[in-house]
This record gives sequence, structure tokens and C-alpha cells, in this order.
Amino acid sequence: MIRALAFDVFGTVVDWRSSVARELAAFGARHGISDDWSAFADDWRAGYVPAMDRVRRGELPWTRIDDLHRGRLVELLNDRGIDVDDAEIDDLNRAWHRLDPWPDAVAGLTRLKKRFVITTLSNGNVSLLTNMAKYAGLPWDCVLSAEIFRHYKPDPETYRGCAEILDVAPDELMMVAAHPSDLRAARDAGLRTGFVFRPAEYGPERSLRKPADDEFDVVADDFGDLAEQLGA
Amino acid sequence: MIRALAFDVFGTVVDWRSSVARELAAFGARHGISDDWSAFADDWRAGYVPAMDRVRRGELPWTRIDDLHRGRLVELLNDRGIDVDDAEIDDLNRAWHRLDPWPDAVAGLTRLKKRFVITTLSNGNVSLLTNMAKYAGLPWDCVLSAEIFRHYKPDPETYRGCAEILDVAPDELMMVAAHPSDLRAARDAGLRTGFVFRPAEYGPERSLRKPADDEFDVVADDFGDLAEQLGA
Repeated sequence: MIRALAFDVFGTVVDWRSSVARELAAFGARHGISDDWSAFADDWRAGYVPAMDRVRRGELPWTRIDDLHRGRLVELLNDRGIDVDDAEIDDLNRAWHRLDPWPDAVAGLTRLKKRFVITTLSNGNVSLLTNMAKYAGLPWDCVLSAEIFRHYKPDPETYRGCAEILDVAPDELMMVAAHPSDLRAARDAGLRTGFVFRPAEYGPERSLRKPADDEFDVVADDFGDLAEQLGA
Repeated sequence: MIRALAFDVFGTVVDWRSSVARELAAFGARHGISDDWSAFADDWRAGYVPAMDRVRRGELPWTRIDDLHRGRLVELLNDRGIDVDDAEIDDLNRAWHRLDPWPDAVAGLTRLKKRFVITTLSNGNVSLLTNMAKYAGLPWDCVLSAEIFRHYKPDPETYRGCAEILDVAPDELMMVAAHPSDLRAARDAGLRTGFVFRPAEYGPERSLRKPADDEFDVVADDFGDLAEQLGA
């Protein structure tokens, strides 16, 4: 019996790529700079896993995603010779707090919330996730993050810690994500797994494959389909 | 400028005494036992601070409130010679997850949420607070707890940790509570303070004094008055 659902957020609940590209374009317009802002968003995002891996390997002390994002942003701005003040950089960095949900996300979560405890389980820090929920109207029951467990996904401590803090058994908790690697790590930690297909996450040029129907406990096309399959 | 409000929960947001007494009375009716259930609720609650103090002094390892509540409940049942099985005790113990809000709480929080980030900052564990929010319809932006900081209030780590994880300065965070001791500790940690008067917390026989208007940043009669005074 599943009692709670833990959601990956970037890419699974929200469309980070077009949201960040839009914020970058507005920033560019304010400063008279043109660029391929979708490619900039991709480059920014590409710094995410390597930076977390440095924390995971112990080469960096615990560092929240806001600060990892900011470090990468400063590199990318410097590479392009874009010189703006710290307050501008801080504001632009908070683009990651203002991400739009996928069109089915709010209605699907609202439906799932009636039957299950729904929480974030994201590598984003608590304040980022809290601000994003306010911005996007995401009706979480609680906001859990790698920051609380001081381990980034896919470290097993995040998945097990989530079950423990919700006071459910690992197999009463389903990890929901658009990323097979996240789900495989959750499964290895004893959780149930729900894949949601987000083919547009990386934009129209990159095609993503839907996993086989039997690779995870549920394979769904969107949050409405997930709710349907879970009887919510 | 205040950006976020952190709420004490037991007594400030919810009426623990009549809710727990009601659950105890239902338990008594099922087992054919009569007792003064309000007095039982008071006795149960009276074990709370001493048990947390044992954790705060390091005499007990970190122990969540659910387990501290359960230990006290078993003592009280034993004292009265009431013998029931573990599943019954577990269910009765979760009475603390099913507490009714004060009549003004949901409307007041909904109003405050439009202007501020609103979070719990309770000694209750995360699963207790999450279940309670679902039960009572409390619209938290996020659920923070002593459990996350591994320190019970009034340890300063809870108040400072709350500001840090919300990414606000201590003086941009207001602690809201019906208990002067909680607010004094929050003030010592650099937070702003909002007192909300809950004269019925301990029942009709125990009279509570409203603090002087200048003792805390805001002294309010209920959450509607708090919202009014904060311009929400």
C-alpha cells in the first residue's frame, strides 16, 4: 500500500528550460544583449550534476543549490564577457525559484493530494522549493529536500531519510520522477517508483525515450495519468 | 521588513486540549472506561516539556515527539490500570496528529500566506505536523520542525536554523506563538516576535494573562488581528 508520494521537481513538476530561458531573455533585453538563451539555460543546467557530485564526493562542504547555481552562472556570464552587479546576478539566479509547472502538474497534484501525502524530494534547497511552490501554486503537504538530509540524490540517505521523516516504510513511499536514474536509486533504497514522461524537458531537438512498461511500478504520461493509475 | 512567519503550533494554531480530550473520550467509550479526559489530556501534555528537556540535556538521544508522547501515554494508561494492545496505543497516540484549529486559524493563515512565507516551527515531528495540516486544512508553505534541526525549542539552533533554511535574515523572520517563553527565546536569537492570545488553551479554569503591548513586536487577539496589524 502506498501512503506517500515524493516528487522530483526540476523537469518532473516544472519546465525549467523554457522558464529559465524566458528569464534570461528578459535579462538580455534589459541589458541590450542577444544570445541563444535556451542554449544558455542548457549550459547553466549542465553545471548542476558535476557541482553536486563535488559535494557528494566530499570535495566541497555542504553547499545549497542556490549557491551551486550562482557559481555556474558567474562562470557563464564571465565566459560571455557580460558584466553586471551582484544584485542583478542574485535576481537572475532566483530564476530557478520562478519555474512554471507543466500544464497538468497543479491539477494532478491537487487530485493526488486527496489520497496521498505529497512532498517534494528535490536537490533544490528548501527556500527555493518553498518560493517555487508559492510562485507556481504547487499544493505540497510538505517540502523535503536534499538540504534536510545533507545528501544529494542519488545518495540513498535522501530516499531513506524521506521515508523515515514521513514515518512510512520505504515501500509505502513512491518516488515520482521523469528521470530513470533517480528512480533506480530510489528503488535500490527500497522505495516504489513512478515514472512520468516529460519528452519536452530538454527542448524539441533532444528526443527522450519512454522506458518499458515493466521497468518501474508505474509508467505514466502525465500527472493525470499517474493519478488514474494510482486510483486517486 | 518581515518576509516570513514561523508559527508555534500546539496551543497557538490548534486547540490540543479539547481535541485530545475528545479522542480520549471516544477511546474510553470504546473500552467502557470513564475518566476525567480533560485532566488526562493535561497530564499527558505535562509530560512534554520534561521529556524534551531530557533530550535537550543530552540524557536521551534525539527522540521525536511521537515517541515522547507515546512513552508518557503508556505511563498514564499503566497508572490507571488500563490495558490495551499496541495498535490501540499507536492509534490513540496519533490523536496529536488530529488536532482542531482555533476558529480563526485557517482564515488567518490563508490571509497571511498571500503576503508572507508561512511555516510551522514546532517541536512536533514533521510527519505529525504534515498529517495535522492535512487533517485541519492548514495551508503552510512549508513544514519546519525541531526534528529538522535536531534541537528542541527553546534552543537557539531552532530559530536560527529556521531563518537560515528559509534564506532570510533573523530579523526578517517573525516567530508567532501564544507562549511568551518561546517568543523570548526567538527574540534572543534575533527574530521578531508576534504574540497571539489564546486564553482557552488550558481550559476554562486556568486564567492566562495577556502580555503588555510593548513586550513583543506585535500582540494580537487572534490570527485575523495579527494579519491586520501586519498589513496582510
